Amino acid sequence: MLSPFQDAATGVARRVILFSFLSLCLALSHSLVDTREVRAQTDDEQTVNAIFNERLTSGEMYYLLEDLCKNIGPRLSGSEGAERAVAWAKEVMEGYGFDRVYLQEVMVPHWERGEPEQVRIVDVEEGMIELRALAIGGSVPTAPAGITAPVVVVHSLEEVEEIGREAVEGKIVFYNRAFDQTVIATGPGYGGAVDQRFAGPSQAAKFGAVGVVIRSAGSDFGDAPHTGGLRYLEDVERIPAAALGYQSADRLIEALEEQPGAQLYMRLSSKWHPDALSHNVIGEIRGSERPDEIILVGGHLDSWDVAEGAHDDGAGSVHAIGVLRTFQKLGIRPRHTIRAVLFMNEENGLRGGLKYAEVAKETGERHLIALESDAGGFSPRGFGATADDEVLERFRSWLPLFPQNTISYINKGGGGADIGPLHRETGTPTIGFIPDSQRAFDYHHAPTDVFEAVNRRELELGGASIATLIYLIDKYGLKDEMAQ
Amino acid sequence: MLSPFQDAATGVARRVILFSFLSLCLALSHSLVDTREVRAQTDDEQTVNAIFNERLTSGEMYYLLEDLCKNIGPRLSGSEGAERAVAWAKEVMEGYGFDRVYLQEVMVPHWERGEPEQVRIVDVEEGMIELRALAIGGSVPTAPAGITAPVVVVHSLEEVEEIGREAVEGKIVFYNRAFDQTVIATGPGYGGAVDQRFAGPSQAAKFGAVGVVIRSAGSDFGDAPHTGGLRYLEDVERIPAAALGYQSADRLIEALEEQPGAQLYMRLSSKWHPDALSHNVIGEIRGSERPDEIILVGGHLDSWDVAEGAHDDGAGSVHAIGVLRTFQKLGIRPRHTIRAVLFMNEENGLRGGLKYAEVAKETGERHLIALESDAGGFSPRGFGATADDEVLERFRSWLPLFPQNTISYINKGGGGADIGPLHRETGTPTIGFIPDSQRAFDYHHAPTDVFEAVNRRELELGGASIATLIYLIDKYGLKDEMAQ
Repeated sequence: MLSPFQDAATGVARRVILFSFLSLCLALSHSLVDTREVRAQTDDEQTVNAIFNERLTSGEMYYLLEDLCKNIGPRLSGSEGAERAVAWAKEVMEGYGFDRVYLQEVMVPHWERGEPEQVRIVDVEEGMIELRALAIGGSVPTAPAGITAPVVVVHSLEEVEEIGREAVEGKIVFYNRAFDQTVIATGPGYGGAVDQRFAGPSQAAKFGAVGVVIRSAGSDFGDAPHTGGLRYLEDVERIPAAALGYQSADRLIEALEEQPGAQLYMRLSSKWHPDALSHNVIGEIRGSERPDEIILVGGHLDSWDVAEGAHDDGAGSVHAIGVLRTFQKLGIRPRHTIRAVLFMNEENGLRGGLKYAEVAKETGERHLIALESDAGGFSPRGFGATADDEVLERFRSWLPLFPQNTISYINKGGGGADIGPLHRETGTPTIGFIPDSQRAFDYHHAPTDVFEAVNRRELELGGASIATLIYLIDKYGLKDEMAQ
Repeated sequence: MLSPFQDAATGVARRVILFSFLSLCLALSHSLVDTREVRAQTDDEQTVNAIFNERLTSGEMYYLLEDLCKNIGPRLSGSEGAERAVAWAKEVMEGYGFDRVYLQEVMVPHWERGEPEQVRIVDVEEGMIELRALAIGGSVPTAPAGITAPVVVVHSLEEVEEIGREAVEGKIVFYNRAFDQTVIATGPGYGGAVDQRFAGPSQAAKFGAVGVVIRSAGSDFGDAPHTGGLRYLEDVERIPAAALGYQSADRLIEALEEQPGAQLYMRLSSKWHPDALSHNVIGEIRGSERPDEIILVGGHLDSWDVAEGAHDDGAGSVHAIGVLRTFQKLGIRPRHTIRAVLFMNEENGLRGGLKYAEVAKETGERHLIALESDAGGFSPRGFGATADDEVLERFRSWLPLFPQNTISYINKGGGGADIGPLHRETGTPTIGFIPDSQRAFDYHHAPTDVFEAVNRRELELGGASIATLIYLIDKYGLKDEMAQ
């Protein structure tokens, strides 16, 4: 790949040009390289370059993420891991000496997976065939000895209603609609599959099912099951539900084709505990001119229990901390108060986001804007903002400041689950960070969401992009300040 | 990460809206989603969508790459692996039933690494400290028992000249200049470091050095060494040279700080063989209107010997085959002949590219344009083209046809090492595919460049983008045809 002399600007290399490398392949060098070097830089360009350079050379947030993933690990709300993560985040931000670091109390649900799930095809000839499965978060357990029942395959919630009680009663309903691979950005692929996980169990129970399995709402063709939350309807029996790996789902389909009456054995030993006390973790750099006006940058600290939550949302957590840390290291003194919020319980309750909004409304705290990073630590592509057109146009006018297409668009509409309540309660505009989405749902809620799945430069480029947008918002505001 | 209801378009999901998910986070959905769905599609949009859908749903080229990586593996020119790769590529394209599949003979250099490299710090107190190292491709061996010598650290070729013979003679020169992490696109980071590998050995030998080690020209902070080619100058003694992993380079620096006279032991058992017969592998779909005008799409089939060459350039190889395969599956009958060329020997000689150009010139074959994919199987970002402004403007006018920013820019200037000779010999315009570059030099020429480092959707999106550009060029030409 790539001749060593494709970079025409390298004087040293020029001296040793080999005939075979005279063709200077420009692959991997983006469009702004040349122009950036020859013209004088504005103050903003200098600051933005300093932000990117700091992040790319130190890798400090990458190593912080490694610490969170490897030394804290899984951190589902209510768990010991979540409490260790809260203490860790507070200690990290205090260690950096931010102006203010504190905890905000919040009661959170506490669900435990229990022993490893067992989901097996009861094959008449070959005996039990083990499938890779995870209980869906929030699922009730099966009977302690497990349950065994025939399987009925469906592809939508509507289909359960169509085939009705006669076809469903006493059975395990298998929701087999796969993630739509034809999407380009993968969010809608997930959005188009996840109703099976979230609402499928109660829908099946309404028609007498005794359990539910789903084809995982993930984009990979591997066999890692993807967990996530469910919602049981009131007044409907709560039945156990598990997600199968993609290949395990295929195996089950094959088995049912060979033996239409094949049964599934399923054993889940999950458990609900009483709500537990936990915390949002908050750090601030105080504004020099408008200390009472807050620019919030957040991610969520909790993760599912089956992985390290590296992309979801360790990445967002270190993105948030990283904005403050980068400003501190570069001596950028913001005009507004910059607040990093690591929310608790995004994954199965959103209690942290709700509590934060409640407190903000009660105390009358003013938020200029809130940004969330909860789409992974991949290469940056854009931002989406829920704000009026004048604000969007201002953001778009800054696009040339993001070096070499790091951020190439500002969408209308965007935010994040945790900052949604703040938006609704106080009208605060919101921004969502949009990284490249191709790998996101390969790892999402699966045991594969580990530190090794994160690339240092991608993570830090995303963090630098977020820090750059926050820097510009802080400096210039959302609108001309006379008008605000 | 991501509420299940962020995708506002999913009717089913809407029915089960939970209060905590009312905020529809639009992260991961790019800007064109809505508009694409509501307006009528043109023929081109339909064809482009069909190309993307086919690639993303089948994953056929991803599995083909797996076959190449796992069942053929490393394939350095002249090796048995390279010959098996030639037979494999021919068989694959014949299996697809392309209109014409054939081999083009080319003599290639044949260098062998031999036994695993040994590079060790001779520590007075602690004994030998093993470093991770790879011989630089083309290096001569050390004496069979290895060599031991003191180390002198430099950061550039110029510095060797500055410190001169007195400081260098009888020593091992350690080129320690690191990959510049401040670059955004990583190509220039590599370009700025690689002269040490390529020209460093002869430069050191001129001043009496007995060996060379370099800090690998890679972007990762891990310990995988990155090999690659070197060039010995005529009339200068050929001395052995090896690349150290990033962490091993750090270890050596530390050892030299503690014991400035510390020596390095180095044993390489590499070997040069006579040139070997090998082949470019070529497949075609014959044009329906202009069969004698060729649109070339290429990658290189050879790889370094230490890895599977998944990104470099297995990805480009399946990108090239994939254009033909996708046209075939979708029934797209091209006007021009579309030719996939898998070049041999890009890595250490470029003999395949040179031979191809020589034959094309001799036979007077007319190439409309040539595109190369040799920057990895990552998410697509853009193309670079060496063509006149009118052609560039035509390409740019097609950008809206690439769904959701898959391709967001067309750079002036671009091509690839293998198609460079064709450009020089015949004036054929060239195009280089530009994927996201953040991870490229983590794997480049290192043992980590394996199939597992490739993401299915990223690879196929790149392939679909290339197939789309070729489709548009074939349909509309480079300029108005009256003028061509």
